Amino acid sequence: MLALGIDPGTAICGYGVVEMKGSILRPVFYGSILTDKDWKPEERLRRIYQDVSDIISHYHPDFMSVEKLYFNRNVNTAIPVAQARGVVLLAAAQQELPVLEFTPMQIKKSVAGTGTADKKQVIFMIQRLLGIREKIDPDDTADALAAAVCGLSQARILRMQTKGGQSIGEILDAQRNPLSKR
Amino acid sequence: MLALGIDPGTAICGYGVVEMKGSILRPVFYGSILTDKDWKPEERLRRIYQDVSDIISHYHPDFMSVEKLYFNRNVNTAIPVAQARGVVLLAAAQQELPVLEFTPMQIKKSVAGTGTADKKQVIFMIQRLLGIREKIDPDDTADALAAAVCGLSQARILRMQTKGGQSIGEILDAQRNPLSKR
Repeated sequence: MLALGIDPGTAICGYGVVEMKGSILRPVFYGSILTDKDWKPEERLRRIYQDVSDIISHYHPDFMSVEKLYFNRNVNTAIPVAQARGVVLLAAAQQELPVLEFTPMQIKKSVAGTGTADKKQVIFMIQRLLGIREKIDPDDTADALAAAVCGLSQARILRMQTKGGQSIGEILDAQRNPLSKR
Repeated sequence: MLALGIDPGTAICGYGVVEMKGSILRPVFYGSILTDKDWKPEERLRRIYQDVSDIISHYHPDFMSVEKLYFNRNVNTAIPVAQARGVVLLAAAQQELPVLEFTPMQIKKSVAGTGTADKKQVIFMIQRLLGIREKIDPDDTADALAAAVCGLSQARILRMQTKGGQSIGEILDAQRNPLSKR
């Protein structure tokens, strides 16, 4: 199973394609889309949309996994994040990719065992879980990989609980956000 | 000159195409894109993106005019607004449409003469300015028309101040947001 994790942002948009075979996780392709602050907002969004669309059409992941947004502080810096998240979701919809959404706490718990893990712990665990030796930089790349890993763990639980007959896409689509019980 | 005003939102996204000939304003096409709350977020964004793209490719406006976002209150309801704004800006970028951004106060001042005008005043003035006799409903449609009128007034000022040689698109592009002096 193949997951595309995305950490949306206008200046930096992290992405991570992760494969799961049995319980083995393997990083396939990861990095961050960077846009220049001197570009117009709509040009930055176009680059992010195009790059995410290209990743989807190249790797054909089974689903996209993306963090839910909350505005607790720095609300005005969050506007470009939400705008970027909009074009990322659009890219998924246009290629019929199921979208899983997780809270930051769910993602941290999934990769580091605790919802209160800090950035360093998340990066450390992502490197261990995926066997990545090089430093993952920026954080946004690690956060995207973490979202992918969280989605895959969830999909694995679902698959184990399922008696078969349904594709993962159908299961994920039906249980859009199983962890949050919404 | 033809302007497309947009009032972004996920549930309701207002749009208004307004023509200016000399100082005469004429409404060409206006309404609101409605999406169902039972649709997935990405499906709602896809509909908004598709409809706005279709309006642009059908009418070929000279520019898009859209309100700047501020999160003063109700920040979490503003997430879907910002996501919708992201796909609207993307639709403009993909068709090389210049984007003008105005604060709510600039738009109100432009149509009602004061930045503190309330919704009723804005609707009343938009109906007068554009010669629309039917009730404009929902508000989002009126707000989109108001954004278009604000953009046209600004473009008219620019045009009068310009000695010629430049297209309006070039002027607007260069003076991305003349009113805000940013």
